[in-house]
Amino acid sequence: MDLFMKCAIEEAECGRNEGGVPIGSVLVREGRIIGKGRNRRVQQNDPVLHAEIDCIRNAGRIRSYRGTALYSTLMPCYLCAGAAVQFGIGKVVAGESENFGGARAFLEQHGVEVIDLDLAVCKEMMRTFITEHPEIWYEDIGEE
Amino acid sequence: MDLFMKCAIEEAECGRNEGGVPIGSVLVREGRIIGKGRNRRVQQNDPVLHAEIDCIRNAGRIRSYRGTALYSTLMPCYLCAGAAVQFGIGKVVAGESENFGGARAFLEQHGVEVIDLDLAVCKEMMRTFITEHPEIWYEDIGEE
Repeated sequence: MDLFMKCAIEEAECGRNEGGVPIGSVLVREGRIIGKGRNRRVQQNDPVLHAEIDCIRNAGRIRSYRGTALYSTLMPCYLCAGAAVQFGIGKVVAGESENFGGARAFLEQHGVEVIDLDLAVCKEMMRTFITEHPEIWYEDIGEE
Repeated sequence: MDLFMKCAIEEAECGRNEGGVPIGSVLVREGRIIGKGRNRRVQQNDPVLHAEIDCIRNAGRIRSYRGTALYSTLMPCYLCAGAAVQFGIGKVVAGESENFGGARAFLEQHGVEVIDLDLAVCKEMMRTFITEHPEIWYEDIGEE
């Protein structure tokens, strides 16, 4: 498997083991991980700490996002896709988009390359979480 | 002046006095402020802490954003507009859009009502900051 996605999945599993939403993310530049994160809505009681936001935050103030790729176990929502578009992240790699279609069209309309790896492990992890904790999941994506 | 925007401006001024990017934001529901925030990129060394993100974060896990309005001294960028769209915030009120056009069209395309108050005090505060600290401003919006 893609080694960067493997790391994002480990972040997601870590979040799941903490009782959080199992979505993980890594930011990559020149073949190297420069930031990692996971959804921490539950753990930090923070509505904006989606995995990709946590990841970009943990990468710090890198000034330029040129040449970076954002990996996420799930297709990014508008919040996280908005971050990618605003900061000029050129590529988004998602583990799956079956449980949540996210903002793929928006990303592509703004010139971001999007790859969907459609991985069974990501789909299964997310499907299980949504089945077991629908109230947290719908809160996370702002649906009532 | 609009009292909610007055409060957002006070947040921006507070950020400026801390050495930060002078943008402030409040989240309002049923005529009451339920969250306040300011850009704290510099203060917290955090690239995602735009004013609106800080504000939504400070409002906590409110579960539903129905009936909320997000005030910001500057037209929101894609990151913050993405948060508004994803969470279903119905209205965005901006202090100005002269120094930064932001993601107004994106917000409106997704059914968010956008009002631009075009306030001299907001324009002057932002213009002064961009003139004095262009490197921080362009870093904040992801431009090189």
